[in-house]
Order: sequence, then C-alpha cells, then structure tokens
Amino acid sequence: MAVATEPIAEICRRARGAALQLAGASTEVKDDALRRAAALLRARIDAILDANAGDVAAGLEAGLDPALIDRLSLDRERVEAMAVGLEAVIALPDPVGETIERKTLESGVELEQVRVPIGVVAIVYEARPNVTIDAAALCLKSGNAAVLRGSSSAAASNAVLAGIFAEAIAAAGLPAGSVELIAGGGRAELAELARQEGLVDLIIPRGGEGLKAALREVAEVPVLYAAGGNCHVYVHDDANLEMARRIAVNAKVQRPGVCNSAETLLVHAGVAAEFLPAALEELSSAGVEIVGDERVRELAGGVGIGPATERDWETEYHAMKIAVRVVDSLEEAIDHINRYGTAHSEAIVTGSEEAGRAFTGGVDAACVYVNASIRFTDGFVFGMGAEIGNSTQKLHARGPIGLRELTSTKYILVGTGQIRE
Amino acid sequence: MAVATEPIAEICRRARGAALQLAGASTEVKDDALRRAAALLRARIDAILDANAGDVAAGLEAGLDPALIDRLSLDRERVEAMAVGLEAVIALPDPVGETIERKTLESGVELEQVRVPIGVVAIVYEARPNVTIDAAALCLKSGNAAVLRGSSSAAASNAVLAGIFAEAIAAAGLPAGSVELIAGGGRAELAELARQEGLVDLIIPRGGEGLKAALREVAEVPVLYAAGGNCHVYVHDDANLEMARRIAVNAKVQRPGVCNSAETLLVHAGVAAEFLPAALEELSSAGVEIVGDERVRELAGGVGIGPATERDWETEYHAMKIAVRVVDSLEEAIDHINRYGTAHSEAIVTGSEEAGRAFTGGVDAACVYVNASIRFTDGFVFGMGAEIGNSTQKLHARGPIGLRELTSTKYILVGTGQIRE
Repeated sequence: MAVATEPIAEICRRARGAALQLAGASTEVKDDALRRAAALLRARIDAILDANAGDVAAGLEAGLDPALIDRLSLDRERVEAMAVGLEAVIALPDPVGETIERKTLESGVELEQVRVPIGVVAIVYEARPNVTIDAAALCLKSGNAAVLRGSSSAAASNAVLAGIFAEAIAAAGLPAGSVELIAGGGRAELAELARQEGLVDLIIPRGGEGLKAALREVAEVPVLYAAGGNCHVYVHDDANLEMARRIAVNAKVQRPGVCNSAETLLVHAGVAAEFLPAALEELSSAGVEIVGDERVRELAGGVGIGPATERDWETEYHAMKIAVRVVDSLEEAIDHINRYGTAHSEAIVTGSEEAGRAFTGGVDAACVYVNASIRFTDGFVFGMGAEIGNSTQKLHARGPIGLRELTSTKYILVGTGQIRE
Repeated sequence: MAVATEPIAEICRRARGAALQLAGASTEVKDDALRRAAALLRARIDAILDANAGDVAAGLEAGLDPALIDRLSLDRERVEAMAVGLEAVIALPDPVGETIERKTLESGVELEQVRVPIGVVAIVYEARPNVTIDAAALCLKSGNAAVLRGSSSAAASNAVLAGIFAEAIAAAGLPAGSVELIAGGGRAELAELARQEGLVDLIIPRGGEGLKAALREVAEVPVLYAAGGNCHVYVHDDANLEMARRIAVNAKVQRPGVCNSAETLLVHAGVAAEFLPAALEELSSAGVEIVGDERVRELAGGVGIGPATERDWETEYHAMKIAVRVVDSLEEAIDHINRYGTAHSEAIVTGSEEAGRAFTGGVDAACVYVNASIRFTDGFVFGMGAEIGNSTQKLHARGPIGLRELTSTKYILVGTGQIRE
C-alpha cells in the first residue's frame, strides 16, 4: 500500500500484478482478510478517530461547508458501522467462479461461461472516509485489485483506513498491491489515473457531476458512471390517494440530499383536485419549497407555490424542493419522465395492474416502482451487501453496483482433441 | 428507412422513437418481421444480385483487392444463407423480458431484475453485405432499433437489403425507424454518428484496427469493441503430441484470415525435440511461413525458419504465417500469452486436468480452451445464433456478441404502499 508521491503508473502496475494473483484467491482467504480488517478497525479505533479529528479540524479551518464536514466526520458508531459492513460482505456469496451457462457444443466440446474478476478497479470518491473500506471490501471479495483515490480533505483518515486494510490483506497472505491508495491530488492526478490503459480496467467515480464531467473529458480507461438522479413519483387517476401522499412525501423528505429522492411529482388531472391540496399542504408543512405548473397553482389553496419553468423539470434539487405538474394521461407522465429523468428510480402509484405494467414497460430507467417509495433503491436494501453507487448507464451494470457488477466473464472450453472442419 | 443525405442526427432521432416502441414489441411480431424478411430475400434475389453486381463492377474498376471483392460479392448461395440466418434468429429465445433475479425485500416489496433492450444500437461495418441482414436481425429480435453504417463499396447492395428489411418491418406493423441505413460516408460521418449521445446508446464497430482507432478518438457514445485476435496454442509437456499437432495445424490453417486463428505456437521444452520437427514440417507443407526463437530453429531439421523478433510475438498476421517459441514452464506460457495476447481465444494441449485448470485460471482471455482448437470461438458454434463480432473487452460483454449481449437490465419493484423509514 502506497500513499502519495509515487508515480501513479507505478501504483497501478503494482495493482495489476496483484490482480493476477487475486483472481485465483479462494473465498476463504479473501474472507479471512476481511475478518482481520474488521478486527483491526475495532482495535485501532482511537488512531482512526485521531486521524479523522485532524482532517475535520483542517476542514473547519479551510471553511468547508457543514454538510461536507458531516460527511467527513467519523465517530465510534460510524467506525463500528464500517466493521459491520465488512462482516456483511463476508456473508455474501463470492461471485468469482460462478457458472453462468454450461452446454455441450455439437463437436462435443464442453462450454462453461464463468464469472471472473475485472482486474484493476479504480474508485474515485469524495469526502466520506467509509468509502475507503466499503470499496476496498467489495473489490477484494470480487477478486479485483483496488486503486482508491479519495479526497484530499480526508487524506489522514483514508491513510489510516487503507493502511489497516493493507495490513489485513498481508496477514491473510494476499499480495501487496491488492489495495492501493492515491491520497488527495487534483484534477491532473485524476487525468493521469484515467489514462492508465492496460493497467486499470475500470474507473468508478462516486461523487458530484463536476467529477464526472472532468472524467468524461479525459478518460481513456472505461468508466462506470454512478450518476445522479432526477427522479419522479407519478400519481395515476386510480391511485389510493392516502398511499400516494405517503409515498410522495417519503420520496421527497426522507433523505432529500441523495440521488434517489423525488424531484418532481406528476399527478393525473382526474385526481388532481382531490389529491393536491392535502399533499401540497403536507409537503409544505414538512419544509419543502414547491413550484408547480398553472393547474397545480390553481389547486394550491393556502400553500405558497412558485411557477415551475422548463428548468425545474430538468433540475435535480437534492434539497427540500419539489416541482409539481398535472398530466392528462399515463402516456404523458411516461413521456415527461423519459424526457427529463436521468433513468435512476421512478414510481407510479396506481390501483391497476395494467397501468403498473404500462409504466414499468414504458419508463426507461434502472429501477421502476409500482406502489412503493423510490427511496428503496440501494445495494443494501436490494440484498447486494454494500454498493459502489448506482449505475444509470445501460451497459455492463444498471442499478446498484455490487459484487456481481464488479465481475467480467470468461468462456472455458474443454475438449478431447476436437478441431474445426 | 432512409438512405444517404439526410442529417445523421435526424436518422438517429427516428431510430430513438422507434426504439421506445420496439422495446414493448412481442416476440411473435418481431419473428413475423424476420419471417417476412426471409421470404423477401428469396423473392427479390434477382434485384439483390443486380445491385451487388453493380457494386462489384465499381469495386473492380476502383482496383479493390481480390479479398475485398470476394467479401463484397453475393451469389444465390450467399443470399440463401442470409435467409437461413434469419430463420436461425427466429428459432432463438427472445432475451427481452427474461427474469435474471427475483426476490422479496425485507419491506415486502417484490423485486425483479429483467432484461430490456439497450435502445438504439449503431453497427459500423465494412464490405460484407450480409452483415446488413445479420445485424438488423439480431438488433430487431433483441428489441433494439438498428442504425447501420456500411461501406460505400457496398452501397447499392446494402440499400436493397436494408430496403427489404424495412419493408418486412413495416408489413409486421413495427415502426419505421426500426432499421436505418447510413450509406457509405467517410470518417467525418462516422465521427458524427459517434457523437449522437442521448440518441445512440451503443456503437459496435465490426472491422479492422483502423476503424477502431478512428472511433476511439472521437466516440462520445459507448463503444463495444469487437477486437482482433493475437491467439496462441500452447503444447504442455504431458500433451498427446498427435492431438497437439492436429490442433496447432487446424488453429493456423483452417481459416488464417480470421481473428481466432493462431498466430503463435508455444511448446514446452520437455517435448520440443519430439514435437517440433513433425509439426513444423506439416505447417510448412501446408504453406505456412514460420519464424521461431533459437531453440525452435535448432530443431527445425530441413524446414526453413526465419528468426522471430519481439515484433513477431506482438503481431496478428491473419495470414499463413506463424511464430513459434519454446518455453520452460506452464507459467512462462501463461505469462507470454497475458503479455502479448489480445485476450481473444487461447488454448492449451495437455494430458493433465491440473495443468488445464492452471491455464484456464491464469490466462486472462474471453475464451480459454483445453484440448480443442481455438477456431470454435464463434456465436453460431456457441449456440447463440448469429453474432456481431467477438468482444475482447471486459465490460458488458466478453466473447461472441449475440442477442443477450445486446440487452441491458431493469429492476422492477412492486409494493403495496411501502415507504422507507
């Protein structure tokens, strides 16, 4: 494990070497490393909190905003949560070696398609130090070498955490280079990492749109974008309106800063007059700023609602704000979502299976819900253990990125001397 | 279906609109369109051959090389093979809607992960007119709209073939725009196609390294590279040498111009003296030019063998030429292959299961063979029906690109009003 000034190509070359050995590591050995890492996290909790206190103090001095400071801060509970997270990854089945398909070809050659690690996976992330442990654990269990590039604001915390992980890996007999940390560094370093073709097989950026835009410009290595979410809740004209109100409010206010919170509420014209006044009232009481189209504003009653513009339909607020629109049909709702959405998580509330099917078929998104809150989109909730973000692209992985999404495949063909005529 | 001078963005926009409808098309309707296309190919065979004769005459006049003219040329048998290919695609299961995973979340929400089409898939290819039909058929069956960009040398043939396919699609009641043809055009047009982000979901180039390099520079749309192959046959020291000779010769000479022919033969030092003289003699008699390292040249007997250089280990000859090297161990063979190979198709000939397992585990490639010729790598042979090239990248698809590789996934979640606490 190396921190800092070593050339990035050197770090990646060591990871590449480790990856070839990791690909053949048994589940037992990988789990042993994870178990040792959990034990070390608990044993070294004071050192972790010391390092983190230094990062937080520097962040406060530098005037980082309170939300960032919160994400950066560790306490005993958060460190324990990391250890528990490692135990959750131990409990997950190892995807490596899983048989996807098996058949006998006409020639008698036996074909088997199996899961294999991708190789070297680089994870680029922002303030949260727990990502260091989560990402390292998912990469290790899926047989990949991890190159971690955290934020400079968390440099001391990440160094201690990655050091602990590297120690656990060495104690389990796995190669140095299985987890590498590139501490801090600016956009030039990111660009260098993104150009290590042949050494790095995949980059997963976990962070804001700025980070992703920067990568899009320079990346030569394949990138799996864990994108933001402009998500919708649509209330159909046959919905249970009490259920619709609870889902809409939950989707907006339960955790407004995350990518699978609702940004726009669409309501069928047939139930708008009945549904909107109470729903808007409840959103407003919960502290949500509301903008709406003309029909919504007419039904607002005493609730103060600004006019919604084209720009509102396009915006991911990630804050206590929502745009509301009345639509005349299910089709109009689907068109709105396919036009403005980011294909992350979308919901319909409806009493009819047919409308549900039309919605799940017509909406082009990673996760499409019928009568449930879009806030469920999450690797843990989906039973995948930890996750490294949520892919909204269509290739390779779509939805939460867990162990299986960190694998590739290989065809293994065994014959008895067959040749092709 | 549009040919020629229309702006590429317009063509892609029409494909995008069609893709939304195609995603919901039933297997029956898609198969009906394929059946109609097969019937039309047979009914219009004279028109197809006329158009093709024009392309071939123009190609001869322009001095195209004989191999290109052969790939460009159609006859009754080749047109019938296209119709039979369509029937093979009809016989394949529809991947769209297939359930990949199903579970009940803790909250009681029912989760299902299903296959969905990718959307708009652009295929960029060279002389062979049959790719127009193969690619259109695979895209249609997997629910994708296809944007085809053939070679200008096959413009007239492709126009007739794509016209037939479009006619079949219309007759089956599927939307115009399901198959679009961009006839000919140069690198500027390719670059424009590769920048249609939001309209085109994926580009698959099927052609030489020049085409791929050109795309790599300009593509903003995701690209699935169907790469070339620098493939190896390794003869272990416990191999049945008669089997090894047959496999090595087949891998080189059965069809030397394709990507899964052998370019390098590696032989364990323990059997080199016994194996090489007869094997080299047979390769040479078959018309193969041979280069080898020093130990190979010492064992060559009467066969004329040039010296192999670093450049030979790196080269995909795609011709009747092979490089031969003696290695001292299985590990050295694996290292050589991982260093110089393109991760396409690799084989070991061995009498031991253990050596086979070490080879299939250690070699990082799409298809790894034990005791069989690497020439089997092929979508048809693997039982996938047609294929659009062979992916050697690790993300999304690795190996032959068939129907399943032309799909993405979607999570569908159905609840009874659950919200996240």
